Amino acid sequence: MAWERGGLPLVKRRASLGEEAADGAAMEHTGRGNDIESHDGSVLDGPAMETDSSGLSDVKEPLLRKRNRNTTSQIAVVGANVCPIESLDYEYYLAFAAFAGCNLILATFAAGICAYIAPAAAGSGIPEVKAYLNGVDAHSILAPSTLFVKIIGSICGVSAGFVLGKEGPMVHTGACIANLLGQGGSRKYHLTWKWLRYFKNDRDRRDLITCGAAAGVAAAFRAPVGGVLFALEEAASWWRSALLWRTFFTTAVVAVVLRTLIEYCRSGKCGLFGQGGLIMFDISSTAITYSSSDLLVIIVLGVIGGIFGGLYNFLLDKILRTYSIINEKGAPFKILLTMVISLLTSCCAYGLPWFAKCTPCPVGLQEQCPTIGRSGNFKSFQCPPGHYNDLASLLLNTNDDAIRNLFSGGTGNEFYISTLFIFFISVYFLGLITYGIALPAGLFIPVILAGASYGRIAGTILGPMSDLDTGLFALLGAASFLGGTMRMTVSLCVILLELTNDLPMLPLVMLVLLVSKTVADSFNKGVYDQIVKMKGLPYMEAHAEPYMRHLVAEDVVSGPLITFAGVEKVENIVHALKLTGHNGFPVIDEPPFSEAPELCGLVLRSHLLVLLKGKRFTQHRVATGASELCRRFGAFDFAKPGSGKGLKLEDLEINEEEMKMYVDLHPITNTSPYTVVETMSLAKAAMLFRELGLRHLCVVPKSMGRHPIVGILTRHDFVGRIVDIYMPSDKEKNRHKGYAFVEYENEETAEYAVRLFSGLVRLYGKIVRFSMSGQDKPSQNIGTPVTPKTNSTALPRPHYVHGKEVETFQGLAQLTDCRSSAYTHQVTPVTPLPNVPRPYPPHATEMAMFPDSPQSINCRVSAYTHSSPGSHQASARGFVGNGVSSSNFDYSRRGLGSALSGGNRSDFQHPVVYPPYPRFR
Amino acid sequence: MAWERGGLPLVKRRASLGEEAADGAAMEHTGRGNDIESHDGSVLDGPAMETDSSGLSDVKEPLLRKRNRNTTSQIAVVGANVCPIESLDYEYYLAFAAFAGCNLILATFAAGICAYIAPAAAGSGIPEVKAYLNGVDAHSILAPSTLFVKIIGSICGVSAGFVLGKEGPMVHTGACIANLLGQGGSRKYHLTWKWLRYFKNDRDRRDLITCGAAAGVAAAFRAPVGGVLFALEEAASWWRSALLWRTFFTTAVVAVVLRTLIEYCRSGKCGLFGQGGLIMFDISSTAITYSSSDLLVIIVLGVIGGIFGGLYNFLLDKILRTYSIINEKGAPFKILLTMVISLLTSCCAYGLPWFAKCTPCPVGLQEQCPTIGRSGNFKSFQCPPGHYNDLASLLLNTNDDAIRNLFSGGTGNEFYISTLFIFFISVYFLGLITYGIALPAGLFIPVILAGASYGRIAGTILGPMSDLDTGLFALLGAASFLGGTMRMTVSLCVILLELTNDLPMLPLVMLVLLVSKTVADSFNKGVYDQIVKMKGLPYMEAHAEPYMRHLVAEDVVSGPLITFAGVEKVENIVHALKLTGHNGFPVIDEPPFSEAPELCGLVLRSHLLVLLKGKRFTQHRVATGASELCRRFGAFDFAKPGSGKGLKLEDLEINEEEMKMYVDLHPITNTSPYTVVETMSLAKAAMLFRELGLRHLCVVPKSMGRHPIVGILTRHDFVGRIVDIYMPSDKEKNRHKGYAFVEYENEETAEYAVRLFSGLVRLYGKIVRFSMSGQDKPSQNIGTPVTPKTNSTALPRPHYVHGKEVETFQGLAQLTDCRSSAYTHQVTPVTPLPNVPRPYPPHATEMAMFPDSPQSINCRVSAYTHSSPGSHQASARGFVGNGVSSSNFDYSRRGLGSALSGGNRSDFQHPVVYPPYPRFR
Repeated sequence: MAWERGGLPLVKRRASLGEEAADGAAMEHTGRGNDIESHDGSVLDGPAMETDSSGLSDVKEPLLRKRNRNTTSQIAVVGANVCPIESLDYEYYLAFAAFAGCNLILATFAAGICAYIAPAAAGSGIPEVKAYLNGVDAHSILAPSTLFVKIIGSICGVSAGFVLGKEGPMVHTGACIANLLGQGGSRKYHLTWKWLRYFKNDRDRRDLITCGAAAGVAAAFRAPVGGVLFALEEAASWWRSALLWRTFFTTAVVAVVLRTLIEYCRSGKCGLFGQGGLIMFDISSTAITYSSSDLLVIIVLGVIGGIFGGLYNFLLDKILRTYSIINEKGAPFKILLTMVISLLTSCCAYGLPWFAKCTPCPVGLQEQCPTIGRSGNFKSFQCPPGHYNDLASLLLNTNDDAIRNLFSGGTGNEFYISTLFIFFISVYFLGLITYGIALPAGLFIPVILAGASYGRIAGTILGPMSDLDTGLFALLGAASFLGGTMRMTVSLCVILLELTNDLPMLPLVMLVLLVSKTVADSFNKGVYDQIVKMKGLPYMEAHAEPYMRHLVAEDVVSGPLITFAGVEKVENIVHALKLTGHNGFPVIDEPPFSEAPELCGLVLRSHLLVLLKGKRFTQHRVATGASELCRRFGAFDFAKPGSGKGLKLEDLEINEEEMKMYVDLHPITNTSPYTVVETMSLAKAAMLFRELGLRHLCVVPKSMGRHPIVGILTRHDFVGRIVDIYMPSDKEKNRHKGYAFVEYENEETAEYAVRLFSGLVRLYGKIVRFSMSGQDKPSQNIGTPVTPKTNSTALPRPHYVHGKEVETFQGLAQLTDCRSSAYTHQVTPVTPLPNVPRPYPPHATEMAMFPDSPQSINCRVSAYTHSSPGSHQASARGFVGNGVSSSNFDYSRRGLGSALSGGNRSDFQHPVVYPPYPRFR
Repeated sequence: MAWERGGLPLVKRRASLGEEAADGAAMEHTGRGNDIESHDGSVLDGPAMETDSSGLSDVKEPLLRKRNRNTTSQIAVVGANVCPIESLDYEYYLAFAAFAGCNLILATFAAGICAYIAPAAAGSGIPEVKAYLNGVDAHSILAPSTLFVKIIGSICGVSAGFVLGKEGPMVHTGACIANLLGQGGSRKYHLTWKWLRYFKNDRDRRDLITCGAAAGVAAAFRAPVGGVLFALEEAASWWRSALLWRTFFTTAVVAVVLRTLIEYCRSGKCGLFGQGGLIMFDISSTAITYSSSDLLVIIVLGVIGGIFGGLYNFLLDKILRTYSIINEKGAPFKILLTMVISLLTSCCAYGLPWFAKCTPCPVGLQEQCPTIGRSGNFKSFQCPPGHYNDLASLLLNTNDDAIRNLFSGGTGNEFYISTLFIFFISVYFLGLITYGIALPAGLFIPVILAGASYGRIAGTILGPMSDLDTGLFALLGAASFLGGTMRMTVSLCVILLELTNDLPMLPLVMLVLLVSKTVADSFNKGVYDQIVKMKGLPYMEAHAEPYMRHLVAEDVVSGPLITFAGVEKVENIVHALKLTGHNGFPVIDEPPFSEAPELCGLVLRSHLLVLLKGKRFTQHRVATGASELCRRFGAFDFAKPGSGKGLKLEDLEINEEEMKMYVDLHPITNTSPYTVVETMSLAKAAMLFRELGLRHLCVVPKSMGRHPIVGILTRHDFVGRIVDIYMPSDKEKNRHKGYAFVEYENEETAEYAVRLFSGLVRLYGKIVRFSMSGQDKPSQNIGTPVTPKTNSTALPRPHYVHGKEVETFQGLAQLTDCRSSAYTHQVTPVTPLPNVPRPYPPHATEMAMFPDSPQSINCRVSAYTHSSPGSHQASARGFVGNGVSSSNFDYSRRGLGSALSGGNRSDFQHPVVYPPYPRFR
C-alpha cells in the first residue's frame, strides 16, 4: 500500500493529480528512472519531487502550487477541451470531490434526460434493434426523442467515467437515424422529406435500419467489414443478398467519411477523435511466431473466457432483474441508482490506484512517461516524477487508452499482476452493475477491458510456457471474453482484426472464439438474446421449438374470429375495430359474390381505416371494384405509416347514416394470404411464419363444408411459454402411458395452467386431472421425468416500460371441442394446453394431464391473451397483445391492395370466468 | 526488340533459360547493374557473362555447358522437385520444344482424365456447387471420380502453365470431400463409415457441402474469414446462423492446420507451399497516405474494372458457347482443344518475352536479381547477367510470383508500361480462352492477374496525379476487376485483405468494389450466375421474377395428377412408379378412411420403394398403422440415400399375387405438406417455395366440392422460360386492349409456343391468334412494344454433359379449362402459356395472343416436359425432367414418415400430338 510506505497521511500530500509538466519536460526523467527508485523512501517522506519547466529543482518548490490545467481526471481528457478544475490542486479529497462531482453531475444529467424524456434510450440498444429487425416494434424504441437522448446520454455517460462503451449506443443511434429517414423524417418535429417516402413499406424500412446498425458498428470500431458482418450475424433476422450489398455500400461510405474526417483531424484539432487513426489499437508491429504448445495455452484461455462469459451473462441477468424492481418505482429512483453507481465508480477509479505501487518509467521509451497534459499510457497519479501508477493508467484513464495499454506489445513488465487482478475484478463488476442503469451503455468496452486484463494476467502467468507477447494474450483474452458473452464469431473476428490490424493472429483469434463460444453456450444464451428475452420482447427464433413438433396448427389457433364479408356494412367494421385491437381481419366472400362462402383474403386494420376515412360508401351491397378506389386514393395513402403515425380510430368521423351504408373491401383485400391447413405440424407452420417474415398466417379447415377459415396464427402463437412436452410411452404395450408432461417456462405459468384447466377437461367420460409434477405425485415411476426447477423469483416488468400506464393482460381461455383422432404421425399429436396466458419470464415445471387412453388424443384447449380495443399501437406491455403491430414485415408490394398479410387475432365470444392470473410486480 | 540490338541471331545464343547460379551468388551483381549496362553492346556480342559460384569469371566460360538443374521453365518451378531437362541448355528452339512439350503432355493428360473419367470436373466448379446448394443435383457433380479428376487435373493444369487458377477447383474439391463424408463414404469404392450416416438428410448434407466450399476458399487463399463470407455471399442459397457457426468452425480448423503445415514447411521442404506464409501477398509494409484526389482516380479505376469485367463476362459467355459445340463432338475433340490452347499458351509465355527489353537490375535490392534457380521476381530469360526481362518475370513465372511482382510496392520502374500492356492483353484473352477447355480451371487467378496488370498500367499513367504506390494500384485494379466479373463484395474485400494484409487500404478496396460492381451490373450478371444459366441448371433466384406477379398458382400448375389412396393396391403403385419419373405423389384419403376425399399428404418415390421392398402387404383394404411399420423398418431405412444410391424400381421383386394386395401408405406419408390455394399469386408461391427450400408445393382448390388437390408446383414451374408479360391497357376505356405480350427467353421457345397454341385456344367463341410480335403485325400502335432481340445463335448443350446418352425431353402440352374470371387484383392475372417445354438458353421475343375482351381473362393453358419412366436419377439433361430429384432440400426431420415434402409432377392422360420441338445441337 503506497501510503503506508511514506508514513504521511495522504491528504496532506500534494495533489499529483494536478501535476503538470510543460510540454515534454517529463521526458527527461525517463532516463533516470532507476535513480529515483533508489531514493524511494526519502522522496516520499519529504515533499514530492517537483517537475516543472526546469525539471531539476525538485525539493525547493512550494508544496501547493496552483496549476493552470488539470490533466488526469477522466473528465479532463475526454473531449477536446481540457477544463481546469483549480481546486484539484490543493488536496486529495478536494480533487476527489471535483472528480466525483463532475462525474456525478454528468451522470445525473444523463440519467435525468434518459428517465424523463426517453426511457427506451437506456442500455445498449442492440437487443432492441435486434428485436425490431425480428419484427417487434417496441414502443418508441427508434423514435427521434430516443435518438436525441441516446446521443447526448452516451456522450455524458462515457464522459462521466462509467465502465461502459459507446459502441452499442452507436448501433442504436444508427438504427434510429435510419428509422427517421425511413419514415420520411419526423412529422412531430416538422422535419419531413417527401423523397424518402419510398421506404414506406416494411422490407425497405427494415433494410434501412439494418444498414443503420451496420453503420453504427462501422463507425464505432472503424470496422466497415465488421459492421456488415455484425448486421448479418447479430442484428438481422432475415437476410438476402441485396441486403448484403446495401449494408456493404453503407459501411463503405462510412469508411470513406471516417477516413476523410480522420485525415482532417490529423493535426489534433478534434480532441481524441483522430486517435489511433483508422485502426484504433494497431498492434501489427508485434512479430508473431507461435508454436503448437501455444495452442494449448490459447485453448485454456478460451475455456476461461467461456466460463467468465457465461458467468457474466448469468450475473447480468440477475442484476438487471434486481435493477428493474428499482427502476420501476419511478424516474427519481432511476436517477438515484445512477448516482449511486456513479459515486461507486468514482471511488473505484480514484481509490483503487492508491493500492498500486509506483513503477519507474521504462527506459528508452518513445512516449512521454508519465503522461501528463493529455491522455496517454502512463499516469503519474500520486507517484513521483519518472514513475507511473500502473493501476491509475488503466482505471483513471479513458477506456480507449486503457485498452491500448493492455494490448500494447513488448510491455510485459509494465503492469503488475496484482494491478491487473484489481483492474479485472473492478472492471468486471463495475461493468455488470453499470449496464442496467438509466444510461445509454454499451457492453463491448467493459467486456474488452475485462477480457484483456485477464488475458494479460494469463499471459503473465503462462508467459514462461509460451512465446507469445502479453499484449497478444490481452487481445486473445478480449476475444475469448467477447466470444463468451456475445457469442458472435465471424463478426467479432473481423471487428478485432480491424481494430488491431493483426492478421497473422487471425487463426488464434478464431480458435479462441470457437472455444469460448462453445464453452459458454453450454451455460446460457448470448447476452443480447438474454436481454431480449428478459425484456419480454416476443423474439422469434430461427428454428422451431422442439415442442412444436408435437402440435398441429389447430392446437394453438384461437377461437372464433371476427370476419368481414366482401362488401361489409360500415357499422360492422367500425364496431369490430373498436372492439378489438386486431390488425388483420379475414374477408369471406359469401353468396352472391361467390357460390359458397370462401376465403377471399385478409384486410389490414390500417387499410380499413384509410378506406373508412375516404368515405366511399354505397347505399347497397354492391361491389364497386378497384377503379373506383384508384380514383379516390393514391398509392401512398395505403403505404405503411411510421410507427405511431397511422390513422387512429378516433380520427374517423362517421355519422349515423353512413354507418348503415356498405363499403367494398375487395380492392384493399390481400387475396393471396399464406395459409396452412389446420392439421399442419406447428413446427412447419412456424418455419413458414418465420422464414417468410409473416404477421398473420391463416389456418384453413381440412375437411369440406366448414367455415372457410379456422383462425389466424400470429407471432404470439409461436413464442408461447411452453418449453417442452414429454409423453412417456409404454414400450411393451406400444401405447402411451396415458399421461404427459408439459414444461412451462416458469412455475407461475404452470400453476396457473393447472388451476385453469382443473376440472374442465373431460376425456372418455373422465375428468382429466392436472397437477404440478413432482409435487403431489412424486415421480410416478416414469422413464425420465424432468425435475422442476424452482428458483422462482418474482419477475419484474422490463425496466424500459417504466413511467407509462401499463395495460395488463386478461387471461381468457376457451375450451372448444375435444375430439379424439387416430393420427398416423410417428409422434402423435398431443393436447398441450399450448396457449396459457403468458407471463414474462422463464422457468420450468411440468404437469401430468392425460387419462389412460389407448389412442392418442387431440384435444383442442386454447387460451389466449386479449388486448383491449384501440390499443393497436405498440404499447409498453412487453409482448402481450399486439405490441408488434406497427412493424409489418411481410413482403408487401408498395401501393394499393397489395399488402401481403394481415388478419386478426382471435375474438372471444364465450368468456368463461377463470381464476385471475397472478400479476408480476 | 531485344535481339536486334545484339545483332546475333537469337537461336545461337546460349540458353539463359537454363542459366544457373549457385545459391545467392547472383546477389553480387546487383551492385554493378549500372556498369554492365554501359557495356551493353559488348556483352551481347561476346559470349554471355557467366554467373557461377565464383561470380566473377565472366567471359571465359564455355558457351554451352550442361546444367544440373533446369530453373525457369514453369514446369520446373511448380512443385517441389525441379526436373532437369537437359536439352534446354543447348538451343532456344529446343528449349521451347521442351517447355511446350512438357506443358502439352501435362495438359493432354489432364484433359484426358477429365474428358474420359469425369467430364463434370472441367471448369471452376463454383457454379455447380452454387447450383447444388440451390437444390440442383447435376449428374455426378460431387462424385468421387469428379473429386479425383479435379485434384489431379488441377495440379496438372496449373503445372502446364495455363492461365488458370486453383481456387475454384479447390472450392469444388472441398464440396466433393464434404459430399463424400455426407454420404457416409463411397459405397462404390468400399469406403463407408457408419458414423457418418447422420448426414442422411438434406439440410445437414447441404450444410456440410457449404462448409466444404468454405474450406476450399479458406485453403486456397489462406483466408479463413474470407472463406466463410464466400460461402455466405456466393455459394449458399439458404443461410442460417447455425450454418455461419459451422462454416466458421470449419475454416478455423483449416486456418490452424494450414498454419501448422506452413510452420512445418518453413525450411522449404514443401516446395512452393510455404511461400508467402499465411499471408500470400503481404504488402503491409507499404505506407499509405491518400488524399481526396486519389479517390477520384480510384473511382476511375473502378469504372474501368466494371467495364472490363462486364466485357469479360460477355466474351466468356460467347467463348463457352463456341467451345461447347466443339466439346460436344466427343472426348478426342475436347483433348484436341486443350492441346491447341496449351500450345498457344506456351507460345505466348515463351514468345512474347522476346519483345521485352532487358532491364538492369535495380540497385540495392535485398533479393537476388535475376532470380535463378528458384521461383522469384526477376527472370533473366535472354538477358545478360545483372539484367532481367520484365515480361518474362510476369509471363514465364508461376502465377503466384507474377501476382507478387505486380503487387510489390516501391517498384514503379521495374515494369515498363509496354510490358504491362502486353501482359494484360495476353492474360485477359488467354484467361478467356482457357476457361472452357476440359480442365479444372479457376477464374480467380486470371482475373487477379489481368486486374493487377491494368491497375499497374493505370498507376503508371496516373502516377503523377496520385500519391499511391503502383503496387497499390495493382491491388486496386485486381479488386476492381474481381468486382466487375464475380460481383461479390464483402467476401472479395475480406479475401483481398487476408491475401495482402493491407488493412489501411480497406476503404479504398471497398470503394473500388462498389464502383466496379455497380458499373458491371448494368451490363450483365456475375460470371458464376452466367455459367449456371448457360449450363441450363434450374437455379432458383432469391426473388420472384416480375412476370410472376401477373400469374396465380393455378396458371402454371400442370394437368391431372396421379394420386394414391391412403391404402393403395400394390399394382397401382408399381404401375405409377414405372410410368412416371415423379418423385412425389399426393395421397388422398377417401371413405371409409375419411368422410370425404381429403388430402392426406405426400409420399416420396424413394420412401415408396423402401416400403414396397419391405413387402408388408395386406390382403384387404385396412390401415395397418405405424407400429407395424416400425417393427419392420429402422429409421435409417428411410434416410435419404446418397445421389444415385437409392433403391431402383428394378430392384423390386413383386410377384403377381402380391400385386393384388394392399399396402398402407399412411405411415410414410408426410401429412403436413406445404400448400397454397390455386388463386395464390405465383410470386408469393415462389417466395414460399424458395424461402423454405421446397421441392414440391401442393396446390389445393379454393372452392369446396372439388378434387382435394389441383396439382403440384415444382422447381421447374418457377424457373420457366418466360421473361416478362406485358398487357397494354387502354387508359381511356379503362380496360385491357385485348392482347398481351409474352416475352420468352429465346426465339425458338417463342416460335414453338406460337406453333403449339395456334388454333387451340378458344375464348368467347373466337380462336385466339398467336404470332411473333413485330413479325406479321408490325407494332400495332401499342404504347411500349418490346422489340424482339434476334441474335439467335443455336445453343449447344452444356459441355459437361458430354459423353453420355442424353435423354431429350418430349414436349407435351395440355389444354385444360379456359374460363374467364373477374379478379380484383390491381394487376389482373393473364394467361401466359407459362410452361412451354424449355429449351436451354436465354433469348427474347414476344407474342400477341389476346382477343379483345372487356374482362380480364384467366385461361389455363399449360404444357410440361415429361421425363421417361425410371429416369428419376438426375441425368445429364440440363434442367429438363427431374434433374433436381436427388437432393431434397426441405426441412425433413430424420427418420420415418417425416419427410416434409414430396409429390409428383403432373401426369399425362390425354396426349395430343404437337409439332416436335426443335432439338438444339
